[in-house]
Amino acid sequence: MSAALIAVDWGTTNFRAYLLDRNGSILERVSDRRGILNVADGDFAAAYLELVGDWQVSADGPPAVMAGMIGSRNGWVEAPYVDCPTDPAALAGNLTPVPMADGRALWVVPGLACRNDGVYDVIRGEETQIAGAIARAGATGVSAVYCMPGTHCKWVRVCDGTIAGFRTAMTGEVFSVLRDHSILGRLMAEETGASLGPAFEKGLDRARDAGGLLHHLFGVRAEVLSGVLADAAVADYLSGILIGHEVRDLGAGEAVTLVGSESLNERYRRALTHYGHAVDILSGEDAVVAGLWAVARQAGIVEEDV
Amino acid sequence: MSAALIAVDWGTTNFRAYLLDRNGSILERVSDRRGILNVADGDFAAAYLELVGDWQVSADGPPAVMAGMIGSRNGWVEAPYVDCPTDPAALAGNLTPVPMADGRALWVVPGLACRNDGVYDVIRGEETQIAGAIARAGATGVSAVYCMPGTHCKWVRVCDGTIAGFRTAMTGEVFSVLRDHSILGRLMAEETGASLGPAFEKGLDRARDAGGLLHHLFGVRAEVLSGVLADAAVADYLSGILIGHEVRDLGAGEAVTLVGSESLNERYRRALTHYGHAVDILSGEDAVVAGLWAVARQAGIVEEDV
Repeated sequence: MSAALIAVDWGTTNFRAYLLDRNGSILERVSDRRGILNVADGDFAAAYLELVGDWQVSADGPPAVMAGMIGSRNGWVEAPYVDCPTDPAALAGNLTPVPMADGRALWVVPGLACRNDGVYDVIRGEETQIAGAIARAGATGVSAVYCMPGTHCKWVRVCDGTIAGFRTAMTGEVFSVLRDHSILGRLMAEETGASLGPAFEKGLDRARDAGGLLHHLFGVRAEVLSGVLADAAVADYLSGILIGHEVRDLGAGEAVTLVGSESLNERYRRALTHYGHAVDILSGEDAVVAGLWAVARQAGIVEEDV
Repeated sequence: MSAALIAVDWGTTNFRAYLLDRNGSILERVSDRRGILNVADGDFAAAYLELVGDWQVSADGPPAVMAGMIGSRNGWVEAPYVDCPTDPAALAGNLTPVPMADGRALWVVPGLACRNDGVYDVIRGEETQIAGAIARAGATGVSAVYCMPGTHCKWVRVCDGTIAGFRTAMTGEVFSVLRDHSILGRLMAEETGASLGPAFEKGLDRARDAGGLLHHLFGVRAEVLSGVLADAAVADYLSGILIGHEVRDLGAGEAVTLVGSESLNERYRRALTHYGHAVDILSGEDAVVAGLWAVARQAGIVEEDV
């Protein structure tokens, strides 16, 4: 089976690349810690050649399409944002080429931008996962809410195959900052179990009470002081409060497709199920590979065997 | 004019004491950095005698009443919480004596506890300011919402002279933690003006949009990336978003009395006025002195000249 495409997911802290055959199936993969912040001297060309140069030994090798922070201002080339509403075909039509002296073919997928009540929001990387999710669901006619949990969690609304808009929530980062630097972190047990305990659901319920997030956060402290909450349960309770606030405004009964890592997908699945939402799950890795393949096909960079 | 009471506001990071005459007016004052976290070896008796021993040279000196974290588990004596609903007379009836070998008279005011939707909340120090505010407003029949802005901002509801309940919001601490440790802090200008700019009101407006606080926080970053928000305005915009989320659920047109420092009172006055609330202002220092005096009188520790 001959190689057809090098699919690269190059983020802030990780580099992942996949060599795909003419059906979009994975032949080989490379994973490395050299995210864009860890590339020596910002020499992205050298890192790229060292990591996947064997797959593309010359301009005659398979083309490469890259998604993620590699296309940001601090990356290899800056790939401009495409405004919503848009669709995967517009992503394919707005690839930014990476100039290589020897004529190797490399492109970067654009990010997405939108405005919510006039306020700017941006995506870089997840747009490719959305393209993959749409392709896997049957390309057109898809209507769904996608949630990509993470440091900055993305909620993307797709209507009839169009990416209508999205919202980012700073949930993961707020959790980390409160755990590591606030009075709440100092209440947490040194060691917490790997599995998510029932305090998570208690936090989800709390998020629907009156008083707002800033009040619910103080309640974590008061519940520990009063002996109601054990220190080993503080992290789960806090996580439940934060994710609960993220999820509580979702329309009643709305179905959500989660696209992320196994552990975050499971955490959000529990939250959404607790609130009565139907949940589909897609692995973040499957989505980005399917998205890079779909974009490359729509851009005419590869042709699928049929 | 002879001294009648030593009124002490002993918090986490500051010690403030006032020598009061028989009308509750201030004769002398002492201010020091020895909050309870800064008292060498936790020897509170030694610190007390060094700071205000001259006012109370023996058991014949004026009595002392203390409020604040000095009554917490980490303070001099632990003064139990009084449950809401309650009133200033119950504070006076539940003073905790501090045992002193030479028979000097010292008491600590209790904190307050309540439950909101079953979740515990606590106050330690602000209960005395409330007692002062009620006394200044005419002792009984007072109905008001009090806001005590700070690291952990307190919202206290008084109905007919009864302290009905309260809510704490972690606003000040969340602001500090996000400024010092999150991606939002890294977007802020090194130097920001001392005065509050119009980005504060922009943040207040943002707090009423759809999407929730965790989404609005990410918007701070996106607005800077897109060039809409200047780095010098980031801190004011973030402050407006956080205080806006604290204030937005207040009943329409409800009047609020602010009890705090001059700068925080002004910040919250702007927020409340922006949302259409009438605002009264009381200095935090005036409130705590009036409260310690009122509690001491109701406890029969001092008698006012009439």
